[in-house]
Amino acid sequence: MTVGSVCTAPRTGSTVERFMRVRGLTDLLASRLSPEDQIPQSMTAASPAAWHRAHTTWFFEEFVLARVPGYVAPEPVFRFLFNSYYEAVGPRQPRPERGLITRPSVAEISDFRARVDEAVVAALEAGDVDERGLELLELGCHHEQQHQELLLMDIKHLFSHNPIDPVYVDRSADPAAATPGETEWLAVVEGVAQIGAPDPTGGDAPGVHAHDGHAPSGGFSYDNERPRHRVWIPGGEVATRQVTVGEWKRFMADGGYSRPELWLSDGWATVQAEGWDAPGYWRREDGTGDARADAESAVYGEWTTFTLSGRRPVVDAEPVLHVSFYEADAYARWAGARLPTEFEWEVATTGWQIRDELDPDRCHPRTVADRTIGGVWEWTSSAYLPYPGFVTEEGAAGEYNGKFMSDQHVLRGGSALTPAGHTRHTYRNFFPAASRWAAAGLRLAR
Amino acid sequence: MTVGSVCTAPRTGSTVERFMRVRGLTDLLASRLSPEDQIPQSMTAASPAAWHRAHTTWFFEEFVLARVPGYVAPEPVFRFLFNSYYEAVGPRQPRPERGLITRPSVAEISDFRARVDEAVVAALEAGDVDERGLELLELGCHHEQQHQELLLMDIKHLFSHNPIDPVYVDRSADPAAATPGETEWLAVVEGVAQIGAPDPTGGDAPGVHAHDGHAPSGGFSYDNERPRHRVWIPGGEVATRQVTVGEWKRFMADGGYSRPELWLSDGWATVQAEGWDAPGYWRREDGTGDARADAESAVYGEWTTFTLSGRRPVVDAEPVLHVSFYEADAYARWAGARLPTEFEWEVATTGWQIRDELDPDRCHPRTVADRTIGGVWEWTSSAYLPYPGFVTEEGAAGEYNGKFMSDQHVLRGGSALTPAGHTRHTYRNFFPAASRWAAAGLRLAR
Amino acid sequence: MTVGSVCTAPRTGSTVERFMRVRGLTDLLASRLSPEDQIPQSMTAASPAAWHRAHTTWFFEEFVLARVPGYVAPEPVFRFLFNSYYEAVGPRQPRPERGLITRPSVAEISDFRARVDEAVVAALEAGDVDERGLELLELGCHHEQQHQELLLMDIKHLFSHNPIDPVYVDRSADPAAATPGETEWLAVVEGVAQIGAPDPTGGDAPGVHAHDGHAPSGGFSYDNERPRHRVWIPGGEVATRQVTVGEWKRFMADGGYSRPELWLSDGWATVQAEGWDAPGYWRREDGTGDARADAESAVYGEWTTFTLSGRRPVVDAEPVLHVSFYEADAYARWAGARLPTEFEWEVATTGWQIRDELDPDRCHPRTVADRTIGGVWEWTSSAYLPYPGFVTEEGAAGEYNGKFMSDQHVLRGGSALTPAGHTRHTYRNFFPAASRWAAAGLRLAR
Amino acid sequence: MTVGSVCTAPRTGSTVERFMRVRGLTDLLASRLSPEDQIPQSMTAASPAAWHRAHTTWFFEEFVLARVPGYVAPEPVFRFLFNSYYEAVGPRQPRPERGLITRPSVAEISDFRARVDEAVVAALEAGDVDERGLELLELGCHHEQQHQELLLMDIKHLFSHNPIDPVYVDRSADPAAATPGETEWLAVVEGVAQIGAPDPTGGDAPGVHAHDGHAPSGGFSYDNERPRHRVWIPGGEVATRQVTVGEWKRFMADGGYSRPELWLSDGWATVQAEGWDAPGYWRREDGTGDARADAESAVYGEWTTFTLSGRRPVVDAEPVLHVSFYEADAYARWAGARLPTEFEWEVATTGWQIRDELDPDRCHPRTVADRTIGGVWEWTSSAYLPYPGFVTEEGAAGEYNGKFMSDQHVLRGGSALTPAGHTRHTYRNFFPAASRWAAAGLRLAR
Repeated sequence: MTVGSVCTAPRTGSTVERFMRVRGLTDLLASRLSPEDQIPQSMTAASPAAWHRAHTTWFFEEFVLARVPGYVAPEPVFRFLFNSYYEAVGPRQPRPERGLITRPSVAEISDFRARVDEAVVAALEAGDVDERGLELLELGCHHEQQHQELLLMDIKHLFSHNPIDPVYVDRSADPAAATPGETEWLAVVEGVAQIGAPDPTGGDAPGVHAHDGHAPSGGFSYDNERPRHRVWIPGGEVATRQVTVGEWKRFMADGGYSRPELWLSDGWATVQAEGWDAPGYWRREDGTGDARADAESAVYGEWTTFTLSGRRPVVDAEPVLHVSFYEADAYARWAGARLPTEFEWEVATTGWQIRDELDPDRCHPRTVADRTIGGVWEWTSSAYLPYPGFVTEEGAAGEYNGKFMSDQHVLRGGSALTPAGHTRHTYRNFFPAASRWAAAGLRLAR
Repeated sequence: MTVGSVCTAPRTGSTVERFMRVRGLTDLLASRLSPEDQIPQSMTAASPAAWHRAHTTWFFEEFVLARVPGYVAPEPVFRFLFNSYYEAVGPRQPRPERGLITRPSVAEISDFRARVDEAVVAALEAGDVDERGLELLELGCHHEQQHQELLLMDIKHLFSHNPIDPVYVDRSADPAAATPGETEWLAVVEGVAQIGAPDPTGGDAPGVHAHDGHAPSGGFSYDNERPRHRVWIPGGEVATRQVTVGEWKRFMADGGYSRPELWLSDGWATVQAEGWDAPGYWRREDGTGDARADAESAVYGEWTTFTLSGRRPVVDAEPVLHVSFYEADAYARWAGARLPTEFEWEVATTGWQIRDELDPDRCHPRTVADRTIGGVWEWTSSAYLPYPGFVTEEGAAGEYNGKFMSDQHVLRGGSALTPAGHTRHTYRNFFPAASRWAAAGLRLAR
Repeated sequence: MTVGSVCTAPRTGSTVERFMRVRGLTDLLASRLSPEDQIPQSMTAASPAAWHRAHTTWFFEEFVLARVPGYVAPEPVFRFLFNSYYEAVGPRQPRPERGLITRPSVAEISDFRARVDEAVVAALEAGDVDERGLELLELGCHHEQQHQELLLMDIKHLFSHNPIDPVYVDRSADPAAATPGETEWLAVVEGVAQIGAPDPTGGDAPGVHAHDGHAPSGGFSYDNERPRHRVWIPGGEVATRQVTVGEWKRFMADGGYSRPELWLSDGWATVQAEGWDAPGYWRREDGTGDARADAESAVYGEWTTFTLSGRRPVVDAEPVLHVSFYEADAYARWAGARLPTEFEWEVATTGWQIRDELDPDRCHPRTVADRTIGGVWEWTSSAYLPYPGFVTEEGAAGEYNGKFMSDQHVLRGGSALTPAGHTRHTYRNFFPAASRWAAAGLRLAR
Repeated sequence: MTVGSVCTAPRTGSTVERFMRVRGLTDLLASRLSPEDQIPQSMTAASPAAWHRAHTTWFFEEFVLARVPGYVAPEPVFRFLFNSYYEAVGPRQPRPERGLITRPSVAEISDFRARVDEAVVAALEAGDVDERGLELLELGCHHEQQHQELLLMDIKHLFSHNPIDPVYVDRSADPAAATPGETEWLAVVEGVAQIGAPDPTGGDAPGVHAHDGHAPSGGFSYDNERPRHRVWIPGGEVATRQVTVGEWKRFMADGGYSRPELWLSDGWATVQAEGWDAPGYWRREDGTGDARADAESAVYGEWTTFTLSGRRPVVDAEPVLHVSFYEADAYARWAGARLPTEFEWEVATTGWQIRDELDPDRCHPRTVADRTIGGVWEWTSSAYLPYPGFVTEEGAAGEYNGKFMSDQHVLRGGSALTPAGHTRHTYRNFFPAASRWAAAGLRLAR
């Protein structure tokens, strides 16, 4: 559902090392989960942790090991169980029923992981993986990093339904952060910009240069980030930092969730149908246990939010999190601003530091910081559409990104759940407008 | 959702022994399930095995231990998590979200069971359980037996969604049974009959005698089986054995699922909406994996059904299983007969042997047998309504049965999932007309 | 959906006169509706007035004229358009799409009515209608009377969605009625009673006598009222008058709609899902236009209800109207009573006067009156099931009643929308438990 | 839902004449509808013809007459009934219940139209309409033209549900058209283009010139067509004519509707959920009445489609009609092409002739013609988003277009239902991806 990243923070290690590093992080993330935790699917859009672990493994078996001479998949039914949406590969377990698979057990899935890891490493060391296989192996690493973030998103969603407020990672209280200063605005100059990632084979047409002379490096990129192409950027300004929880409370206090004129038509319909009056996972603690009743009268400082460290008070200096595109858009209108396009976002943030990627001991964004990206994904005003000249890859791997290019919205940046090295300036994440379980916030433009 | 039975097959044992025997059977049934198996809720009407185990334990804590001086529930949140529908007791986890509770773990639920067992036994031995407490303890034993059947129904439903066809109990192939002889018909004489269970306190009015002089024994009964009362029975005939799989295939071969004139209006609508063309869990094995496509042209001998021992060929001599009320009613119309009322069922079967209760090493009905009940629940033509003079008990225990008395249909008898000693002639089980996951078949009347 | 009545109040008139009298009332009822009013279907369970007028006509064409030698239906497509649910007759317009039929026009439907009337009268006068045809003609008259009530129910439902509050019949304000006295209770003696209508052919078995010696007269009855049969009536008491609006307000003031212990489980779920806090069509007039907001704090005297004479204040002395089975059942529990069974209702009301049938200049019940039936249908505690020995008629007419015998609840009596002569003591009306658009109230028993 | 056009084909007439000409066309279109035809709402996205007629009138009353000193709306409830979605104006009849408004009658709505027309003309002639009022009057004319197309779309949808196949406009059979020649491709040169309509006040920045020197004329445009701005156009080719019915049949014969690799993920899910196997309104005539059964085996020449002249055989030379965005996208992929962006569409078609606008005696597209637009709306690959610098107007009129800018897809051109003078090269129509009731086809690009 989302899109990937460079699995290769240090590009020095061998392919085997890089492969094992990615695989190991999944195991680390799962090690804090009981077998029970790994089974449920808390909504159709989410998947069980066991499924994430098996599906990422299936990807290597289906696309890499299947190319290795003599390899035979020991468990053919896994192909059915752990295929996600690759129509070209064959039938698969219906998506809403992923949470009903209790066998193979979690231990057997761990065995499956280990067996595939061994086979991949053996094939690599024997030189049995051809060039295309190496490309698919790299894609598989990025694919697994995406699923690491999804696994954390989905566990958070699952745990949020348990009144016990389970703790995924124990985290001592952060020191109260000072309120960030006022937002600054970075001017983006009108003109033609180069957008997107370069052809990994170096085949970009001559004369293609970035708007600001700062071309992205030639590392891995997904098909949906390419081809690198020209876009006319109108002049504008982009905020140098993300919108904070404290700012969002002012929006709420000003009736943000009850003024239809601030909302897109579909957004307002969603607010009313879902009863939204705050970001996802927020709850008013009013002693009655009924958060909604008091929402309008109470002091906003009493809001809590569910985190991977349990339920905690919201923190003003952090970026706002778990808002939908509709909410981000309404907030921007309330603020007299707008969301940036994904193109001006890419131009504006080029050169900014990437920070606040996944720290498995925290799993939560830090205080916002100027001229950085990361911590929370940022909704843009752009629809998720193919770049001019976008070509779907041949075969099942071609189903990776292109077929989702309708009625989704682009998010840029990365989040505190995005594995280290997976965030980049050309990366295009995407979700439907009403989604709130992604670690998504926003940055303003005008 | 269903109704209970005498937890006391041998009535000789002490209360402690009887309590521990019931509790032990739940543990035995769960011992074949992994922690993973115990988590999912495969549909709203079903519950996780872990929940069944915790909820039955909660019942003893809430209704029995709470009466014991000085008892303090160690985990107050369990009260919220494992209450099922007792509005009077307070709020509870929303029913469709029972499958999202992964903590407490299965091991912690086992601990909860052991802790409550100890406390109950200690209280019994100390004489700290008052008379009402003892009544509620007995109710709790019957309640747990009901949940033993539900646990097995729900596990079967869950496992049926796994393409691996998990095996709950290993069972070697049964020898092929001879086709049962033709159905015989037992005449039921017109007149006034006594229906229902006697007042457990012996308080029935003088002069109340059964239609056939065979009054039920004075053991435990649920409130919905009482008061014992007179009903005018019109003359009729009741089949001495249940409808078999082989007979059901003839109904199918004769277009039973495609002839609207055989069906109740709501039943026909359900057939069309759900695409039913065979009983629940049946599938045509046609090599294509698409059971429905061939359903009309193929040989009916190729049908399989999902059982707690995996997917197996259907067996003609067994009673048909997993049919809804709508199907049972349509079959009876096709056969030129009807379903019995629950009253003539009770009159006709009095004196018949109870057989084929739960054998944990089988969990599947045996070949039908004349003049017996058991193996499969039997749909009656009766709506589930209160008997004349029915009075709801005071307090939360009063929510046990009465509040479900609308739009449900009475089933009588017991099934191969009903724990030993829980089947009785006055027992009233009930399900909505479209339910198919209960172990339900039928017997004809005319 | 509902059930019929004797179309032949005076049995003296000729068949032609009786036929034309029934047909004429439909025309009178429709004459107050514009073509526009006759088109919409305000919910799936309702039908357009134009459809009611055409469908009742189709019935005579399909079942009576089709038997007349040489008759040819001039508009075969009408058979498709205006068949309601007779599967045996062939395909038909999907029920939820009846409101999309704007052609034939209302004027053409009037022509269709006139043409069929002429043909029926000509056939009758020519002696071309055989014995079975005459029976079906009588059935058609009763069928049309049922649809007269449905037409009024459906128009009321339609008009209630129009903020203009359309007036179907102009009615000057009724003088305020005195509050009825306290309810009296009529004892019903324990014993065997004869229930149901006699065989119209006089074929009842010898020795069948009513409980109280008061056998119903031998007029028309529907198949679902037969055969007349014995039922054991437990002793009890039935209220001599219906529950009033004033009494219902006390139930509301006592928290009737917010106390789960008063409700059946499905009823409570419906209350919460639908937000019910008063009978159907009631609204709190609080100046804000938002009825629900003030419902708990305000004076109950400010409730209004939508009537066929527009929106009017509720009147305490009238029988409560537009309550569901769930509400009737909860009220009875609150009142320390219960609903009567349909059997004790039939025994108790035998000999009581029928009153308050349809007055086309009023279309609304009058003040309750002792020892009468009529004004509002009365929910009973009985499920709608076949009487012992019930046999479906051969052919399409056999689909009349029997196929609805699941998950519906019996109402007895008649209402202020029931055409004169259509109410009788053995009549069995039926609706699902959550229905509120029928003119239904209740009477208590205990 | 859609967007507008120049109501002023001849720009010579006075404002009064132009106003009356637009209003008169609505009356002409409605004159072929009975009162019955004008009532139903055949789906939530559609509206009754009576509602379209009243709503367009309400617009003039609400936005123009309300500015005229001394004007008092005679029917305040109309404001509630006939407001569509203007949240700022106040509450309104729930959208799904528009088809339940039978009063005011169709005749009263005609009176309302006449009364408002008189008042507008009187105010115009008296000089009582201020500058802003004149702007809103022009907007109202364009708004009414949009609703003329919607009225025809909605009537077609309504009539298609009537098995009588009603005829809105009688049309003699067209002579069989010769198959159009092969598609030609027009090269679009890479570079910066000017896109959008100029500022009606002439306030565009100096130096803004069109890509090809062909700037649009300065007539009316909607807010969503502005501001005129620069876009970088990648090089490509656009087909000179639309895709035809004959071409679509080849797509179908090649398994177009059963090959998931051709479809967007959401599109494939929609195909399966809806059972699509042909464009909207198409039906296979196979003698059985069950179109779907034969769809795969039969000769495609036997397809018919529902038109405003009843059901007729499909015509190969006509542009394909009533396809969703998903279908258009899948067709393009099958054809080895893609949909054009709305920007390259605008560049490519500049200078092409507008043809085949609404002929009230035809209401159906003619044979495709090279280098023209019109006949059918054309799906583009562009999401419906605001142009850079888009500003919502102040007040309720600001709700016109902007708030629908999420999850809709841009269509360009115009259709055979678009009133004369309303088609223009900068016009942006928009519908959700699954919509099929608009008169929409497609043109390829590559």
